[in-house]
Amino acid sequence: MELAKAKGTTAEERLQSLGLTLPPAAGAVAAYEPWSIVNGILYMSGQLPWIAGDLLYKGKIGAELSIEDGYKACQLGALNAISQLKAALGTLDRVKLIFRLEGVLNVAPGFTDTPKVLNGASHLLSEVFAERGRHTRMIYTNPEMPLDCACLVVFWAEVAD
Amino acid sequence: MELAKAKGTTAEERLQSLGLTLPPAAGAVAAYEPWSIVNGILYMSGQLPWIAGDLLYKGKIGAELSIEDGYKACQLGALNAISQLKAALGTLDRVKLIFRLEGVLNVAPGFTDTPKVLNGASHLLSEVFAERGRHTRMIYTNPEMPLDCACLVVFWAEVAD
Amino acid sequence: MELAKAKGTTAEERLQSLGLTLPPAAGAVAAYEPWSIVNGILYMSGQLPWIAGDLLYKGKIGAELSIEDGYKACQLGALNAISQLKAALGTLDRVKLIFRLEGVLNVAPGFTDTPKVLNGASHLLSEVFAERGRHTRMIYTNPEMPLDCACLVVFWAEVAD
Repeated sequence: MELAKAKGTTAEERLQSLGLTLPPAAGAVAAYEPWSIVNGILYMSGQLPWIAGDLLYKGKIGAELSIEDGYKACQLGALNAISQLKAALGTLDRVKLIFRLEGVLNVAPGFTDTPKVLNGASHLLSEVFAERGRHTRMIYTNPEMPLDCACLVVFWAEVAD
Repeated sequence: MELAKAKGTTAEERLQSLGLTLPPAAGAVAAYEPWSIVNGILYMSGQLPWIAGDLLYKGKIGAELSIEDGYKACQLGALNAISQLKAALGTLDRVKLIFRLEGVLNVAPGFTDTPKVLNGASHLLSEVFAERGRHTRMIYTNPEMPLDCACLVVFWAEVAD
Repeated sequence: MELAKAKGTTAEERLQSLGLTLPPAAGAVAAYEPWSIVNGILYMSGQLPWIAGDLLYKGKIGAELSIEDGYKACQLGALNAISQLKAALGTLDRVKLIFRLEGVLNVAPGFTDTPKVLNGASHLLSEVFAERGRHTRMIYTNPEMPLDCACLVVFWAEVAD
């Protein structure tokens, strides 16, 4: 799976050139916060593959969901993470570097093709943020996920004041 | 499940008003450290739901353990994490912000009600630290846990000199 | 399981005294980076127990692999992590403190002896870096791992300019 090449200079132009729309940032939940900025680093809660509370990718990759579904689930999780960045910062121009991507995946027994799946998030980061999206990453698989979502995506970002 | 409302101004007074006691901070283990402070951030090893080495919550949530057991296990894991803060800092007054809560949960197949379980830690943070306990969080489930504990809880905290 | 006592003053001398050789640092993969340094902290992608792309420890600890295999897999994952430090910094002398070790383990159902397994990485850190290797740590188990590797190892390090 691949993503088209983005055009434009700002992250928002580049997103638009890919034909992708940011979902609304999931609001603060009673018991915890969607993001927190400490010493210029933005930390984030896990982002689900949903749009305005409608969970689009549910179930296990390698069973109910194909690799391509998983790729798109990670892309949508990453779009939600970008929405959180925008909600936190006002503008994506304040993103200096998204230096870590964490993907937690809901996979069927025997499914080990997880790097291809998380590429859905990695490719989006590279296209939209170019040099500022050069990230390390970590893949986890978990036997059960909140709401049976296909994935959780987290960014760690260095941000400007 | 809910927690009573805390009273008092300091974190220790608020803890006491909830009728909760800090377990002794688990000491340094041979091969690794319970906490480390780098650039004003306190990092912590995983905290078990135990009191002085006596593991109170063992087994899988959704099988041997109910949701309420899981909630209490996360509360006790968080109490141990608070003990580590106190051991590291001398006083909880040096806690500026607990900005991240990580919960790793031992769940039975099909158990996806994990957010309710980790609320055991989130509610405690909110009651005891109020504004300084406003945290992002991340839930993981793992198929097997050290000593078959029900959960591991980790805080990340910004601390004053 | 134990590791011999290291001799020498620099990390590289100490490594050599243990009879251990650093594997080549796995190069940058298309979609993501092996490491990133932000505000004096080095963050790292997950390191596999491999040498030049040859995966030496594959499968589940507690089934195909013994505890000792798992210990050695974590040691080799940690050697790869040290290689990344060296590739990133030029010299291990710039490591101020490796303050966090994360181990994700591929275990068979019912295998809870994970702390002994991750000691393979912890003991290596202690022997090679002494005081500068005093780390907190976190163990995760995951039902499926990339390439069915036995473990993923990650360091977080404070580094000098």
